[in-house]
Amino acid sequence: MAYAAVNLAEKLERLTEQWSPRVVAELNDYQFKVVRLEGDFVWHDHPETDEAFLVLEGELRIDFRDGAVTLGPGELFVVPRGVEHKPFAEKEVRMLLIEPRGVLNTGRAGGERTAVNDLWI
Amino acid sequence: MAYAAVNLAEKLERLTEQWSPRVVAELNDYQFKVVRLEGDFVWHDHPETDEAFLVLEGELRIDFRDGAVTLGPGELFVVPRGVEHKPFAEKEVRMLLIEPRGVLNTGRAGGERTAVNDLWI
Repeated sequence: MAYAAVNLAEKLERLTEQWSPRVVAELNDYQFKVVRLEGDFVWHDHPETDEAFLVLEGELRIDFRDGAVTLGPGELFVVPRGVEHKPFAEKEVRMLLIEPRGVLNTGRAGGERTAVNDLWI
Repeated sequence: MAYAAVNLAEKLERLTEQWSPRVVAELNDYQFKVVRLEGDFVWHDHPETDEAFLVLEGELRIDFRDGAVTLGPGELFVVPRGVEHKPFAEKEVRMLLIEPRGVLNTGRAGGERTAVNDLWI
């Protein structure tokens, strides 16, 4: 059988749209999603799940109501369930999200920044 | 509050032992584990779960009974549950494993290569 690895940089190169996570692999009922972010997002939380961010290129800041964390390439952070957060990137950041299938990017905040879910690339 | 990112390369630098996965973060009931591999492992499978491999440095080959896949830095592969596999690295590979808490490195094969589980670094 032919087995193929997922090259994350190649997937991100093909993804031209920012703020639009695309699924690249599944692990049981979890999904790996690549995403390109630039600028500011909306405050939101995910009451039902933690959410993992792994930066591949660039720098991501995640703001919390009482602090912030900055991630560079090869750095990982897990936002605990129910904790309000707001991703921010001064320049474009390319990264991997890991979370259960069905999680919306805006969590329970909703609104116009909500991306279509479960798109693959 | 002080929030800290997990720097995967730093964690791997501190992990001197090969074939000994160490937990660096948790996502619900899943764990992110760093591991350094070199040489050959045993054939095994995990009947209860998929298992994700993300190579950070070096090259990993995963052999299957009917083929193989080779991963370089920034490449991801998910081994489906119940599929027999055998990781191999000609030179040391440094990588991230993502799988549910409680998964043993040798799956249901067991034996002397079984690492102590749930150690953090």
